[in-house]
Amino acid sequence: MPSSKPQPENNSKVLVLGAGNFGSCLADHLGDSDHDVYLYAREAHIVETFNKDHHNPDYLKDHLFSENIHAIGPDFPSKELVNEMDVLLFAIPTQFLRATLNQLRPSLDIKSFPLLVFVNKGIEIKTNALTLEIIADTCGPDFAKAATFVSGPSFAKEIVQRQPTSVSVASLTETEADKTSNLFHQPHFRCYTGGDPIGIELSGALKNIYAIAAGASDGLGYENNTRAMMITRGLAEMTCIGAAYGASPLTFLGLAGVGDLFLTCSSSNSRNYTVGYRLGKGESLETITKTLGSVAEGVSTLKGAKTLIDELGVNAPIASTMYAVLYEGKDIRDAVKELMELPPSRELELPPTAGGPARHLLEKLGLDKHRA
Amino acid sequence: MPSSKPQPENNSKVLVLGAGNFGSCLADHLGDSDHDVYLYAREAHIVETFNKDHHNPDYLKDHLFSENIHAIGPDFPSKELVNEMDVLLFAIPTQFLRATLNQLRPSLDIKSFPLLVFVNKGIEIKTNALTLEIIADTCGPDFAKAATFVSGPSFAKEIVQRQPTSVSVASLTETEADKTSNLFHQPHFRCYTGGDPIGIELSGALKNIYAIAAGASDGLGYENNTRAMMITRGLAEMTCIGAAYGASPLTFLGLAGVGDLFLTCSSSNSRNYTVGYRLGKGESLETITKTLGSVAEGVSTLKGAKTLIDELGVNAPIASTMYAVLYEGKDIRDAVKELMELPPSRELELPPTAGGPARHLLEKLGLDKHRA
Repeated sequence: MPSSKPQPENNSKVLVLGAGNFGSCLADHLGDSDHDVYLYAREAHIVETFNKDHHNPDYLKDHLFSENIHAIGPDFPSKELVNEMDVLLFAIPTQFLRATLNQLRPSLDIKSFPLLVFVNKGIEIKTNALTLEIIADTCGPDFAKAATFVSGPSFAKEIVQRQPTSVSVASLTETEADKTSNLFHQPHFRCYTGGDPIGIELSGALKNIYAIAAGASDGLGYENNTRAMMITRGLAEMTCIGAAYGASPLTFLGLAGVGDLFLTCSSSNSRNYTVGYRLGKGESLETITKTLGSVAEGVSTLKGAKTLIDELGVNAPIASTMYAVLYEGKDIRDAVKELMELPPSRELELPPTAGGPARHLLEKLGLDKHRA
Repeated sequence: MPSSKPQPENNSKVLVLGAGNFGSCLADHLGDSDHDVYLYAREAHIVETFNKDHHNPDYLKDHLFSENIHAIGPDFPSKELVNEMDVLLFAIPTQFLRATLNQLRPSLDIKSFPLLVFVNKGIEIKTNALTLEIIADTCGPDFAKAATFVSGPSFAKEIVQRQPTSVSVASLTETEADKTSNLFHQPHFRCYTGGDPIGIELSGALKNIYAIAAGASDGLGYENNTRAMMITRGLAEMTCIGAAYGASPLTFLGLAGVGDLFLTCSSSNSRNYTVGYRLGKGESLETITKTLGSVAEGVSTLKGAKTLIDELGVNAPIASTMYAVLYEGKDIRDAVKELMELPPSRELELPPTAGGPARHLLEKLGLDKHRA
């Protein structure tokens, strides 16, 4: 399997691409761990403020960031800088990733490349591609095989407060996952490694749909039993969709699955939960989106997920019902009533013939079809 | 596999043994679904009050119970009554189950016996036996094979309010699980069936330990990321203990696993969570137990679980740490610090040689060792 350049024991040089909420907080964590961090922002005012007084003017505004962070931009990082780095950390939205990787590709040398860490979540609109596939398309299969993915229950504002936090780190190349784990691991930031990036990616994308459903349950006035049902049955759906795709069902039991679902579904800090809550209170998606300023991730993920669910032939009544509410004008109370009236069923019915999309993706990477 | 007598389509005759919180609320649910419910209480004043004005003087005191409930007792139900029943529902604490089943055994006829439903949780103290084993010991393997188990995220006071609720129903005999599902299933009380009662039982017992840990995290002042970590890593431990025992890992992903863990860990209504929370605030177990009036279930389960963990050789740092706090005088802050300082690891490392106890139990029931 391809391997990134040997990593130094300490003081890695890390380029973080993306100075949003999550990129900034991870830059802070790594700077605080005595790594040399370069934080790339496309916005000149962010670069300027960061370098002047270690604040991000747009995200985590009250936080004084690590002095080990040097902001760069708005010009795209040079080939020289990229080659100097031990680590590249991608903290940019999935929808911009393909363009960024195309821009970066000429700077990458397969004989000696930095450790690649991806923390974005979601599915690419139109192509329905996972990040693994976007990497393969833009940089080639070897870089995709070496890529590592970090995901887990981790609000950025709690990370910068050094609240104990834990994440899953996954890669098709186990030694690369170990490198990323070593880079991030601290007593207050625990890393757990695994070999199922496809499951990790699907968890990260799908959980937002079920956060909307859990929010709707609360907004409609239901209590603890109902929310626990919504979350657990949502998890069963995520697991079935994942298994049909070709991920390992047990990945959904981990930090990127249950852990992040639990966090997202039980906090009013979550934008997806808020969308659901307000839908349950009777507001329209249009009104909610207007006041939120932008579309919550789960709302757009639901479109791609619905296509996926239909293609895979998976039974996913909660996601299908939420789709009907968001995109077909179904009344949320009628929707919940119909869900409740479904006949009893077996608890977890994993699809018998599973794994088409993952097999296709792994073949694209030149990997054995039984790998995932 | 053994089969209980054919169940009527409607108006089953159900004897609920135990008029505590959960027994009463399930009696109410079944009465409300037009079944004829006999509720057995050992306390004369409960029987009297129930039959006079449909209230339980000790539990769910504000609730007006279904008129289809006839309380009986304090004498133990007669053989005639037992034989007339379509369903026996056991809602008595695990520690009293062996004595009750011994008392009941002479009334049971393997050629025509009522559907058997167990809703108690926990492990028998001293023997470390699951309910499945207690049934086998007292009534014989055939009744154990036919027994059905109901567990899931279900606060009693929300069930009597008809808040939408869902449960797992498991049995070694699939057709018996279906019967129990049909008995209970309503739009506001959804049943999901499965074939792993051992996993369901272990979930129900072990979750209380991790509810104490989640409470401690909150009591110590940690926030959302940390609680999500505690719950998810607790789930990973439960799954490893279960797999080592011989349960299916995926059972822990269901309503009796994740669902009930989520409910128990995120509500101050949970006694186990409260114990942890107050430990985190610096109170001693002695003080907490005094004001709670009795020991929370997780506190006693932890003793049996610790023996089990040691015998199975499973790595379960959270349970072991909570044991040291509760029974060896370890300071809770030191304990959490030590947990955080553990080295990074793989996310889910299922034990390679698993299933000894379940194999032993299933052999006792005359079942193939690969059954579970």
